[in-house]
Amino acid sequence: MQGKLLKNINDPSDLRKLSVEQLKDLAQELRDFIITIVATKEGHLGASLGVIELTIALHYVFNTPDDLLVWDVGHQAYPHKILTGRKDNFHTNRQLDGISGFPKRSESVYDTFGVGHSSTSISAMLGMAIASQLNGEEYKQHIAVIGDASIASGMAFEGLNHAGVTDTNMLIVLNDNAIGIDPSVGALKNYLTKAKIGQKPKSDNIIEALNFKYYGPIDGHDLPTLLKTLNQLKSVSGPKLLHIITTKGKGLKQAEENQVTYHAPGKFDATTGDLVQQSATELPPKFQDVFGLTLVELAQSNPKIVGITPAMPTGSSLKYMMEAFPDRAIDVGIAEQHAVTLAAGMATQGLIPFCAIYSTFLQRAYDQVIHDVALQNLPVIFCIDRAGLVGQDGATHHGVFDITYLICIPNLMICAPKDEIELRNLLYTASLGLDQPIAIRYPRGRGHILEWKKPFNTIPLGKGQLLRKGQSIAVLSTGTIAHNVNEAINAIAKPISHYHFGFIKPLDEQLLATILNEYHTIITVEDGAIKGGFGSSIIAYANQKQKAAEIITLGIPDQFMHHGSIKELQELAGISTNQIINILSKIK
Amino acid sequence: MQGKLLKNINDPSDLRKLSVEQLKDLAQELRDFIITIVATKEGHLGASLGVIELTIALHYVFNTPDDLLVWDVGHQAYPHKILTGRKDNFHTNRQLDGISGFPKRSESVYDTFGVGHSSTSISAMLGMAIASQLNGEEYKQHIAVIGDASIASGMAFEGLNHAGVTDTNMLIVLNDNAIGIDPSVGALKNYLTKAKIGQKPKSDNIIEALNFKYYGPIDGHDLPTLLKTLNQLKSVSGPKLLHIITTKGKGLKQAEENQVTYHAPGKFDATTGDLVQQSATELPPKFQDVFGLTLVELAQSNPKIVGITPAMPTGSSLKYMMEAFPDRAIDVGIAEQHAVTLAAGMATQGLIPFCAIYSTFLQRAYDQVIHDVALQNLPVIFCIDRAGLVGQDGATHHGVFDITYLICIPNLMICAPKDEIELRNLLYTASLGLDQPIAIRYPRGRGHILEWKKPFNTIPLGKGQLLRKGQSIAVLSTGTIAHNVNEAINAIAKPISHYHFGFIKPLDEQLLATILNEYHTIITVEDGAIKGGFGSSIIAYANQKQKAAEIITLGIPDQFMHHGSIKELQELAGISTNQIINILSKIK
Repeated sequence: MQGKLLKNINDPSDLRKLSVEQLKDLAQELRDFIITIVATKEGHLGASLGVIELTIALHYVFNTPDDLLVWDVGHQAYPHKILTGRKDNFHTNRQLDGISGFPKRSESVYDTFGVGHSSTSISAMLGMAIASQLNGEEYKQHIAVIGDASIASGMAFEGLNHAGVTDTNMLIVLNDNAIGIDPSVGALKNYLTKAKIGQKPKSDNIIEALNFKYYGPIDGHDLPTLLKTLNQLKSVSGPKLLHIITTKGKGLKQAEENQVTYHAPGKFDATTGDLVQQSATELPPKFQDVFGLTLVELAQSNPKIVGITPAMPTGSSLKYMMEAFPDRAIDVGIAEQHAVTLAAGMATQGLIPFCAIYSTFLQRAYDQVIHDVALQNLPVIFCIDRAGLVGQDGATHHGVFDITYLICIPNLMICAPKDEIELRNLLYTASLGLDQPIAIRYPRGRGHILEWKKPFNTIPLGKGQLLRKGQSIAVLSTGTIAHNVNEAINAIAKPISHYHFGFIKPLDEQLLATILNEYHTIITVEDGAIKGGFGSSIIAYANQKQKAAEIITLGIPDQFMHHGSIKELQELAGISTNQIINILSKIK
Repeated sequence: MQGKLLKNINDPSDLRKLSVEQLKDLAQELRDFIITIVATKEGHLGASLGVIELTIALHYVFNTPDDLLVWDVGHQAYPHKILTGRKDNFHTNRQLDGISGFPKRSESVYDTFGVGHSSTSISAMLGMAIASQLNGEEYKQHIAVIGDASIASGMAFEGLNHAGVTDTNMLIVLNDNAIGIDPSVGALKNYLTKAKIGQKPKSDNIIEALNFKYYGPIDGHDLPTLLKTLNQLKSVSGPKLLHIITTKGKGLKQAEENQVTYHAPGKFDATTGDLVQQSATELPPKFQDVFGLTLVELAQSNPKIVGITPAMPTGSSLKYMMEAFPDRAIDVGIAEQHAVTLAAGMATQGLIPFCAIYSTFLQRAYDQVIHDVALQNLPVIFCIDRAGLVGQDGATHHGVFDITYLICIPNLMICAPKDEIELRNLLYTASLGLDQPIAIRYPRGRGHILEWKKPFNTIPLGKGQLLRKGQSIAVLSTGTIAHNVNEAINAIAKPISHYHFGFIKPLDEQLLATILNEYHTIITVEDGAIKGGFGSSIIAYANQKQKAAEIITLGIPDQFMHHGSIKELQELAGISTNQIINILSKIK
């Protein structure tokens, strides 16, 4: 599967032995290799195809790993991984115990900085560049590669604003393909588009305003030009930015033409590029679609409803509302902080903002949730997607901290529906108008209910539910992990009760008091961090009421979970069906 | 005390009856009024003196409160408060049950959005502007006033980047005084400085690159020009920015000349402007100085040590290191996200970064703590200042959530020294090199130890301490609230034990196991949110070990605490010496 050049490249020093002509052949081999493997093993395709020439050029020109190179976000780091010693393990990409889908320091000395969330590369590389100065290692070069969607995020601006007043020799390569996961948005994007087609004078652009030397734009697939330019830049002192234009999905026709789909296309035919057809059987919906489609329904009858996503219209399924009501659904780009405060501003004027955001990315807007929403008690509806373990994206993307980091925020209601219908009804209930903010968390992937589009019902706020009545032992779960609990109880020959706490805050203390009186053993189950989460709240209440029940808390242990399938990771975390069966079996 | 014009202004409609000549007199009256009151009641002085003309002009030209006006940060909102119905209460500013030192929605319809943290105004006002469009209220004007330090923060850039592609008629007034609390930094600041003195063509500046119409710079103390310009801008469609130049502290000589000191000068002589002399008695040090001065000592013998502050060199006392080692101590501006990831980048290259940041502002960098520091287990040392209740700055500034939001982060050690000497020794211990990140939290204000500059001692990591031996009842405290506990036990005629848990994570489980066996009643005390905090960890451990001791947890209840003195707020929260005495007295 590895072409004849690639076969002999074990690290960049092998690469540097090749001629420029050979590099062009290598680019083709790399492209074929990535397409062949990702076609069956899945993963992020388009971004990596777009930077094959850039990756070769960077490792050819610069003396990695002594020269320091960081890839922003890391979606695009497959060619980097393959050229830096991981080609023989590349087929294990994103699998349990395989290599990570993102650069990771523990995996390779060439991965200078772990990435996954966007827009960190400038800050991280500037830190390294300042360190090299202080360490007397000024011979080192420092290169950050960042996309046009990522550089428009606030954090990247903060890095640029600082780097521009340093005397480091840092090089930023702006990989401009006009798309993140979805097409890029915002004023900076428009500006860069103009720069590309020569409408703006190069001499006074926004980059130079921040005291960077600006080079480009050049064609990022033109290897000789890339090599020449990078070589020239090696000796240019001070902070500098090279603007290169690339095509996401370069070299695979379908990936170039359907860039959103081929960002991470799932399985496809490596030869034709066609997606592998899903089985004809109807599947239960993805939770994101329950959100996205329900929101459209609600918006049809309530003109006050608006939707906001920071750069995830496809991933969050807000795209449905963006198509149906373009004035009332907004992709603000990779700008989580702005997204949340924008929602708060809208709420002050009587709109009902649904702010759709992944659990792991809401970490980026934590202060805004506290300071702009909760403190003012504004009824923003946070739709927290990808809550819990997310699987193959791994440690940078799991949504396991949200319960804890939200639970200490006054005024904020936190809920976790057990299934698609409850999610739908929670969205409906929230849309009727609350007098406080609410966070609704739901997982990545599909539920289990085919017929989920039922007529709307109001969910009683703050109430738990008895799902199954047993005796002596009660399992209390929150969110869709209820499914595992249900399977586990089914598999056990004991009469075990199962309660669903759709509201983590406020807790249904009335129900909880009854439970604490009735059962000698209580097991809490959640797909979030055990530290400070749902189980902790149950324990704290029991302590306060001096109830003596034995309480066992299951959840994500106090360690970073890595990548693998959600099932495998649930097994490792002790919240899989099997692990719950194990626990339940041991209790007398 | 109120001048003859001010006396008759109860809201902006009264203001609008005045002539332009009268407005000039009013400006003087307002200035005198603010100086007179802040001189004795304390508060933020310089920023408000700098926007007196702007405030008058905005309320004169625009039809507030129907037109919507937001003040970024809000330090500068005193003239706004005084002109919008709060002049008779202005002497209660920042006091318990008095008016807030920041705009606050619950206080006035003129306070469209609560502020306190910087750089939220563009996002909030854009949300309002979009809402006005959807609500069919396009006659409304939308104005955000933001300073040059605040507009350089990432969040503001996100707002600009979005606003620039909208068709809202939003007006941003850039109040450029070249200083935040400390002098502004960064490339954007340099650019604006050039723009001010006419070195950059107005036609292609960074603001216009983001699709804003740019007006100015104009003199922000020239009332007629301000009025004329604002009136013209009322009918300019699309997003636009007016750049005004002001002087922080305008009208009080000392405040103009010592802008950092007179940001919030404490008591001063209203006539001469001289600061009221502190008593000659030597006071125990501020915790920030223990940090700042100790860091200089450590840096003298270890060249790997670096210091980082996001815009708080004075407030965090990093200024001492910036003076002593200008290459190794950096103010990155209002850029908390960047500050943390910069530190992470430095740590990868073997530096020992001390990142000094207020607890409430670390909320801005929460994702970076998780994703860039803890996940990679980089030994960044977070020096979390202003942890706990901060007093008069109120709800936006209390540092009460950090224990909870940090406790769920794997790899991160969390500690809270009980006094100055322990803080000093923790800094020393951390500087010796850890193999994980650490967060050291300490409060605003002064400690109680005059002789704090003792020789360094290593603190055993993860160990608790018995401070006083009693029987039956044990108080477990973390951080400087130990002082209140100590006072309370002194006041009680019972033999009560007191343990100090300097490490909240990892917990000293060995010590805790012994305590749980020995005492029938345990009281935990912390100056952080009770939800998910130190007490919760103690309960969770006791639950896990099935220990039956009664555990009472004291901390900040699940509500936003408002402003007042720290003592008053501790009383309200139930963690004052008196409140601890009350609890201890009731236990048998």
